[in-house]
Amino acid sequence: MTSSTALNPPLDTNLWSQNHLAHVEQALTLWVGDGAPAGLGDAMRYAVLDGGKRLRPLLVLAAYEAARSGSSDSAAPEGAALDEAALRAACAVELIHAYSLVHDDMPCMDNDVLRRGKPTVHVQFGEAQALLAGDALQAFAFELLTPDNTLIPAATQAALCRLLARAAGSAGMAGGQAIDLASVGVALTEAQLRQMHRLKTDYGAAMGLAFQVVDDILDVVADSATLGKTAGKDAAADKPTYVSLLGLERAQAYAQELLAEAHAALGRSGLPDTRALAALADMVVRRSH
Amino acid sequence: MTSSTALNPPLDTNLWSQNHLAHVEQALTLWVGDGAPAGLGDAMRYAVLDGGKRLRPLLVLAAYEAARSGSSDSAAPEGAALDEAALRAACAVELIHAYSLVHDDMPCMDNDVLRRGKPTVHVQFGEAQALLAGDALQAFAFELLTPDNTLIPAATQAALCRLLARAAGSAGMAGGQAIDLASVGVALTEAQLRQMHRLKTDYGAAMGLAFQVVDDILDVVADSATLGKTAGKDAAADKPTYVSLLGLERAQAYAQELLAEAHAALGRSGLPDTRALAALADMVVRRSH
Repeated sequence: MTSSTALNPPLDTNLWSQNHLAHVEQALTLWVGDGAPAGLGDAMRYAVLDGGKRLRPLLVLAAYEAARSGSSDSAAPEGAALDEAALRAACAVELIHAYSLVHDDMPCMDNDVLRRGKPTVHVQFGEAQALLAGDALQAFAFELLTPDNTLIPAATQAALCRLLARAAGSAGMAGGQAIDLASVGVALTEAQLRQMHRLKTDYGAAMGLAFQVVDDILDVVADSATLGKTAGKDAAADKPTYVSLLGLERAQAYAQELLAEAHAALGRSGLPDTRALAALADMVVRRSH
Repeated sequence: MTSSTALNPPLDTNLWSQNHLAHVEQALTLWVGDGAPAGLGDAMRYAVLDGGKRLRPLLVLAAYEAARSGSSDSAAPEGAALDEAALRAACAVELIHAYSLVHDDMPCMDNDVLRRGKPTVHVQFGEAQALLAGDALQAFAFELLTPDNTLIPAATQAALCRLLARAAGSAGMAGGQAIDLASVGVALTEAQLRQMHRLKTDYGAAMGLAFQVVDDILDVVADSATLGKTAGKDAAADKPTYVSLLGLERAQAYAQELLAEAHAALGRSGLPDTRALAALADMVVRRSH
């Protein structure tokens, strides 16, 4: 329990998640594929809707609320309008994630046929449509961040596009995937593996790393039905993972260590209300799929 | 010759193109792949540098200069700064074009092995790296538009991202490619074919359409060495083209008609200096590759 968190009453985590998830799902359902030619729109919606833990948009909304509570006396726009701005940012991050999964699953990358318990996009719609759907989802992420109105101030729109472009591009996500690609079959040290997944510091780094460690653990201990994707793929592909490097038990201990690190980072953050961020960190490490 | 154009001395088209091309090449060489992991950066640079007519960035710069001449008394920033802003916009458009070519050439799309006289990106670097390079180039286009300084005012950054995201996404380029994909082997009327390629009105529409018609003509009349890509591919793939629809002679006449339409649109535009835009229209229709 951090001092910032202690200032606020306990958060009903389930209620918070359900409420925010509902907003995210509703927004994605309304927005994704709108205005696209039929086949492409279907593939885009298939890739984004009906599945997914929505961890990333929940993180965006939790971070937004953590910061917002402290700036209630600032000149920020009123509740409703700002909420749509946060929702757009949250959905944009999810679209980047969704597009990366579509492209990752393709035969030339991981060649995966199952995702969230359903056939992957290229299995369902063909490779060409999957490629285009991924491309269109990336563009749509930036479209969501730049509504043609003052709901999001222009300077914020520009800053959001700047951050998202860098995080998604060759020095961020796509770059990480290229390193991932180059490291298949290559033995890495723990430091190199950590560096491969670590992009940010403190809470974000611990969360991102914990997510990856738990992913590696679940790839070994869970079955495909629970995971909703093919289990045991990493080991079969000779990918460097935390389990192959540390063994199962030490990997599990490492995930707990990272969770503690995330909580500690929130405590040091000075943010007025870190309850949702703390709950999401717990959720990441304790998940079963 | 339009009245706006007549107010300005004749433009040395070759000099204008050479000068502006040099700026575009220099900027792309400096910017593309910077900060990317080695393999990915190589694939990104290979996709963008050493080749390409740079028609799109030249159009952006010509449009910028056409509009700028008339606003010299406005509060726009001074020459040097604004020039980098225009250069960033020009290069961003080229990056979107380059990424679309990388993905289009992949086996699941057009399966082309030759582009600008060189092996296509997936032939040279493998499909996975080509997929990632295309993805990273799209993100980088938005990164170029959002420098973390006031070189481009925030409102302009946001507007540029908005326009580029829409033009590149499911209601723009990616959507057009999905329709293209769905129409292979399908007989279209001329109106449908025109609708498929026409996205904008007046000069932009005439130019875009003329470019496509001339592309279809060159696919039939030019050889692979001149084109720098495999000739005769459209006919072989049973793609609807202007030549298959109208025959070669009527397609050529149509290209001339569109050129006249583009010039007429410039005349009606009220823009103070349309010389570069007029020259680029000529270049599009008279090109040999």
